[in-house]
Amino acid sequence: MSALSRRSFLAGAALAALSLPAGAAAPMASAQGPGVYRYKLGSYQLTALYDGVWYVPIDDKFIRNASGADVNKALAAAFLPPRVLPISFTALLVNTGSKLVLIDTGTAGQLTDTAGSMLANLAVAGISPVEIDTILISHFHPDHIDGIKTKDGDKMFANAEIWVPEPEWKFWMDDAQMSRAKGPVLRYFLNSRRIFSDMAKEVRQFKPGAEVVPSIVSIPAYGHTPGHTAFAIHSGNQSMLAMSDTVRNPYLFARHPDWQPIFDMDGALAVKARRTMLDRAAADRMLVEAYHFPFPACGHMVKTATGYELVPVEWQPL
Amino acid sequence: MSALSRRSFLAGAALAALSLPAGAAAPMASAQGPGVYRYKLGSYQLTALYDGVWYVPIDDKFIRNASGADVNKALAAAFLPPRVLPISFTALLVNTGSKLVLIDTGTAGQLTDTAGSMLANLAVAGISPVEIDTILISHFHPDHIDGIKTKDGDKMFANAEIWVPEPEWKFWMDDAQMSRAKGPVLRYFLNSRRIFSDMAKEVRQFKPGAEVVPSIVSIPAYGHTPGHTAFAIHSGNQSMLAMSDTVRNPYLFARHPDWQPIFDMDGALAVKARRTMLDRAAADRMLVEAYHFPFPACGHMVKTATGYELVPVEWQPL
Repeated sequence: MSALSRRSFLAGAALAALSLPAGAAAPMASAQGPGVYRYKLGSYQLTALYDGVWYVPIDDKFIRNASGADVNKALAAAFLPPRVLPISFTALLVNTGSKLVLIDTGTAGQLTDTAGSMLANLAVAGISPVEIDTILISHFHPDHIDGIKTKDGDKMFANAEIWVPEPEWKFWMDDAQMSRAKGPVLRYFLNSRRIFSDMAKEVRQFKPGAEVVPSIVSIPAYGHTPGHTAFAIHSGNQSMLAMSDTVRNPYLFARHPDWQPIFDMDGALAVKARRTMLDRAAADRMLVEAYHFPFPACGHMVKTATGYELVPVEWQPL
Repeated sequence: MSALSRRSFLAGAALAALSLPAGAAAPMASAQGPGVYRYKLGSYQLTALYDGVWYVPIDDKFIRNASGADVNKALAAAFLPPRVLPISFTALLVNTGSKLVLIDTGTAGQLTDTAGSMLANLAVAGISPVEIDTILISHFHPDHIDGIKTKDGDKMFANAEIWVPEPEWKFWMDDAQMSRAKGPVLRYFLNSRRIFSDMAKEVRQFKPGAEVVPSIVSIPAYGHTPGHTAFAIHSGNQSMLAMSDTVRNPYLFARHPDWQPIFDMDGALAVKARRTMLDRAAADRMLVEAYHFPFPACGHMVKTATGYELVPVEWQPL
């Protein structure tokens, strides 16, 4: 084992307890530490599983109704460099005590070199993909569904029942809709087919608003995509919101809930869903989670004079 | 390997990739995920190493100049329950490329059942205690020095040169001072002796303000204890502040910098050190780290109308 890899992030592998020769310089680690954070909701155990970040170059047109200067100002307030949005990915695993439910599936390394660690982090959490019983999909953008299959088209979660929003399936699997698409949206159509075409018979569809599995209720949150869905999770007398893409980076989209990024297919509808969701979270002081919040991607929302602030959870022992 | 421990936090051990029988309920994990976060400063690699949390019951006298009601309000604003302060511990490892420097040493499990994971997280980071070249101590409170030795009095970091603030040594190792102490402060005197008495000849003392090791400059920040010290770390054209206990939980002590907790031996002097440190961090938009910030315990400080806000780093790949 080389000196360099010895300090690397070793998922599920033995770590040799070798020492350097006395006085030897310490090599730099080559990867980030594991991204696994566990928390409780009633009797459920939740695990945030980090997949990585996509560094998206953005221009003045990224927000339809805000200037590039305003966006760079929002990034600077988060101590982030201008003109690049770090889009973080964190999947949520729910252990109900009887079932392991995974909400969205990570990128499986198929989107960018800086993401794809979700499976390694699942291994750090001590869980094999074959143990996942249920997968809930919020919407059909690649960063949420790519993890369903490997690049070679093999199923990543062999035993999981996959549930998708009915209007999402209807839109992205519709050839007439696809015939009108271009650019990234056309790629999303093609990618949806790559993932789902040969699974059409086994994929289960739910109507947003329905309880998909016991105690996990879907919430229509359309706008980002035509069938984009969030989830409320209930255990005992506790509830939380898994907000999916209703809110993304909190320094941009919670602080500025009216901003309409080009990622939101129907900007005005997405704003409505965002405000409804954030109002509910803030008013009820609910625990929230969002796929694109910075890891561990959970906390609470506070309403301010101009928007909302994320109060991240304080990292604690289990 | 039992089903229960299979999902546990396994530090430096092999993780068996066994599967549950199909349809078996998934056991809950018994411990939090690893707490290791790496970031860069110039050419240096920094690693935040989580040790745990001490849940301290607090009463109306906890802050000398604020009411219990105000403290509970500050806790509620952080979505924390009343009358309990979660005091988080995160040690900082600095890899300069030629030396491994550890700033403060964790509790080694000697303070509370909910802390003591620092060594396990060091192992997750791929580092053996014998590889640590230098230990810098901010002050002599048990949560910062207990990690120097095991309960049995053995050295935890066999090859490390230990540097302590001269005024801290002078105060806590002074028998006349100890003769006037009682309660927790007396225990701190006794604990300082437990750790340091048989190491007096090898422990190195620095004068706060001095560059202790190349590129790590100590900063006198007296008040919390008589010799309490912070550190500025420099690499290339970048600098950061390791603030030690100048600021603790940000929702209490950054938002309310004038609050004087009973932990600060000279409350007024500690407030002065706190405001000086926070003003510097905010004005220069410096990266900061603090031993009691929520893990990964690093971010930036923003000045507000009434105090300061921590903007935590966004978790990113290395």
